[in-house]
Amino acid sequence: MASQAVTPQSVDFSRWYNEIVYKADLVTLSPVRGCFIIKPYGYELWEAIKGGLDRRFKATGHQNAYFPVFIPESYLKREAEHVEGFSPELAVVTHAGGKKLEEPLVVRPTSETIIGEAFSQWIQSYRDLPLLINQWANVVRWEMRTRPFLRTTEFLWQEGHTAHATEAEAEEETLQMLDIYADFAINDAAIPVVKGLKSDIEKFAGAVRTYTIEAMMGDKKALQSGTSHNLGQNFARAFDIKYLSRENVEEYAWTTSWGVSTRMIGAVVMAHGDDKGLRMPPRIAPIQVAAVPIYKNDDERGPVMETITKLVAALRAAGYRVHLDDRDDSPGFKFNDWEMRGVPVRLEVGPKDVQKGSAVLARRDIPGRDGKQFVDQGAVPAAVGDLLEAVHNNMLQSAADFRDANTFDVSSYDELRGVIERGGWARGWWSGSDDDERRVKEETGATLRCFPLDQPGGSGRCVYTGQPAQRIAIFGKAY
Amino acid sequence: MASQAVTPQSVDFSRWYNEIVYKADLVTLSPVRGCFIIKPYGYELWEAIKGGLDRRFKATGHQNAYFPVFIPESYLKREAEHVEGFSPELAVVTHAGGKKLEEPLVVRPTSETIIGEAFSQWIQSYRDLPLLINQWANVVRWEMRTRPFLRTTEFLWQEGHTAHATEAEAEEETLQMLDIYADFAINDAAIPVVKGLKSDIEKFAGAVRTYTIEAMMGDKKALQSGTSHNLGQNFARAFDIKYLSRENVEEYAWTTSWGVSTRMIGAVVMAHGDDKGLRMPPRIAPIQVAAVPIYKNDDERGPVMETITKLVAALRAAGYRVHLDDRDDSPGFKFNDWEMRGVPVRLEVGPKDVQKGSAVLARRDIPGRDGKQFVDQGAVPAAVGDLLEAVHNNMLQSAADFRDANTFDVSSYDELRGVIERGGWARGWWSGSDDDERRVKEETGATLRCFPLDQPGGSGRCVYTGQPAQRIAIFGKAY
Repeated sequence: MASQAVTPQSVDFSRWYNEIVYKADLVTLSPVRGCFIIKPYGYELWEAIKGGLDRRFKATGHQNAYFPVFIPESYLKREAEHVEGFSPELAVVTHAGGKKLEEPLVVRPTSETIIGEAFSQWIQSYRDLPLLINQWANVVRWEMRTRPFLRTTEFLWQEGHTAHATEAEAEEETLQMLDIYADFAINDAAIPVVKGLKSDIEKFAGAVRTYTIEAMMGDKKALQSGTSHNLGQNFARAFDIKYLSRENVEEYAWTTSWGVSTRMIGAVVMAHGDDKGLRMPPRIAPIQVAAVPIYKNDDERGPVMETITKLVAALRAAGYRVHLDDRDDSPGFKFNDWEMRGVPVRLEVGPKDVQKGSAVLARRDIPGRDGKQFVDQGAVPAAVGDLLEAVHNNMLQSAADFRDANTFDVSSYDELRGVIERGGWARGWWSGSDDDERRVKEETGATLRCFPLDQPGGSGRCVYTGQPAQRIAIFGKAY
Repeated sequence: MASQAVTPQSVDFSRWYNEIVYKADLVTLSPVRGCFIIKPYGYELWEAIKGGLDRRFKATGHQNAYFPVFIPESYLKREAEHVEGFSPELAVVTHAGGKKLEEPLVVRPTSETIIGEAFSQWIQSYRDLPLLINQWANVVRWEMRTRPFLRTTEFLWQEGHTAHATEAEAEEETLQMLDIYADFAINDAAIPVVKGLKSDIEKFAGAVRTYTIEAMMGDKKALQSGTSHNLGQNFARAFDIKYLSRENVEEYAWTTSWGVSTRMIGAVVMAHGDDKGLRMPPRIAPIQVAAVPIYKNDDERGPVMETITKLVAALRAAGYRVHLDDRDDSPGFKFNDWEMRGVPVRLEVGPKDVQKGSAVLARRDIPGRDGKQFVDQGAVPAAVGDLLEAVHNNMLQSAADFRDANTFDVSSYDELRGVIERGGWARGWWSGSDDDERRVKEETGATLRCFPLDQPGGSGRCVYTGQPAQRIAIFGKAY
């Protein structure tokens, strides 16, 4: 697999992506339109992403639960914007158990409605609040144009759903989960995301406010990598989620929802990958160290395998995820294969290393001789620990440098158009209307990615209308 | 919740079950027929079950992957017995994205077909074998009569799917997974299961042989708690799963599949529960220790909370799952509540304990004074560790004793009928035909649960036909 050439990113990034996700064995086609099979290497990455998020959710008091995959069609209609947003994408079960159903069941595209109904049963008094629930599940949205991980008919995700006694608490929760997503992206996935607020036309169907983490991919396009929604009282009113306050008054609750999906795998691929393949962020890499024995014949093989097996055991005992590659293939083939799969560190042991008590460590993020070091065998676990940290920091810094080098302040629409045409994010004052925003999209192909939470303060002139503006927005082409 | 009375098991076990799963907050109704919502306490138990199984799967070389929830209707028809077995239970998506689908999609009732199709692509040579895949997923079977966890329209499970070069290896895998299920049931869930072979009429639709773990519930009925199927070459032929052997000959692979579902939660409830509520097996209990502070006024509250908070921290640092119950309710209410939820150990600290440097540990499995002990505060973590072990061993032993006391050797059909009428399992020689087996079911309500792997050897007379028989079978009523 690794021996086949990949289209260079510079030639066609999109094609590079479509080739790399298959060649690195993350995913494969399925017979069902728009659905992909997540192969073990891709699923292990998803398990690492789940683990990193789930730990953070639990540490902030959230509990997992599981709700039905089917939603009565009538439920979706209760929140007007919500049904409008999701109707075109629904998959509908009309027959079951050999009979036509009285009411069709929708395969969940998201679960605000069915969880809203449950919350209305579970919540009676202020003592039941806040209610902090998360669900790990599959969801289905019938997409016309699909791409592995980025846009698929079925995908895996987590969806958090919470209810609160006050508007302020709901907003606090919405922002807390945004922070958790950003913390995960930066510290586990080495992706330097920008936290921001979505514009009204880009927000979730039924939300009052949608916050987002936006990441810049290797082709300078944006990928929305997680969203957190303040739903106000919209779903509380639609599903009658009421509580009796401390003052014995019946009030509607304030709800939120937030989600990260297998799209995050696409973010990891496109934020870090290069022409040789993936580059896995060390903290969530399914394999952190690939151990490759180097020998020419059976005489050399014995002592080399003995030494490398001991080193692998020592690394595993130290808590690292290590794969010993004992296939009957050449070291060169194996090097390419592990580079394609993006394993952060490669451990090599040859006959000379056996004699000298040494080993070679090579890092994926720095190619060639500069990324190699010789270490004493006894020092391998400590050196690997240091190296994984160094790789993480370097990947995060490189991605941040790349994003910063390709984000441009613009003060006019011409400048904005120029940036979008050349590739990159355009950052400028914005106070345009929804229609203005739609026109920018039509004319440039770029969307308003977000109003970053980190604002310069003060005010300026809207890049589109020239009118006074209080906020900076980021525009870019996006997935 | 805990204060409401539960129907005693002796009055109506079935009603006891239906009440307890709600009162212990494991599950709740959903608006979708036959689908239940798994609440956080139930889902935490499922997470512990998943953890225990997943660890064992990975230790034996299996990898997780994810396949589409939808299966083209035509796929199910490729294996004749398979489609016959599952057709009546299918939920079918006929419309999606606002259009009628050209080919209806079935919501997976199990994934042999779609995974078989994938395996036919992934496997080319003997070097690709064995292929050892597992999937954690939701599945849907349209059931007429549903009960929480035991029989639900949608349920969660894992389904393992493997392919092998030889019949012997497939059989070895099938039995290995049965052993893993039994090991989990016994050592994690404290359920003393019987490993056995299903009869032809009870086996999986499409399997050559189905193995099962059967557990006896508190009402002496059997619950099939996990199954492992040797599929022979049935699915390999239907889906063209072929490999090139070492001798360069094209051969069909030999496949297996095996599954454990959220039904295991029902097994835990019915194998261990009593009239006071659940009894959670310590190793998978979501909460292992409930810490209840005891005080009459605010003067007492301060020092009691300080002491108990320290003990809780020490227990957590020692790796135990502990909940500190600081609700504004009476100790009596809390005791009942934790008994209902089946927490194995309760830690109590009152004002006298603060003075004396002591604490009380009470075990759920032994009621009243006999289950209580006073320990020095410094000895609490060690004592809890010992106690959890003791509770596990006692629960396992009690369940085994109960099963053995209610399993009877029978040598005639009259004896078998008598056992089934009085309640219990009947064990006897069996060489009857499929029709004989069906008649026993019609006449007694009992099914052939399994031919236990542990056979006495020798031969005897079939309890039904009086003909010579080589195997002992267990008959019982079942869920």
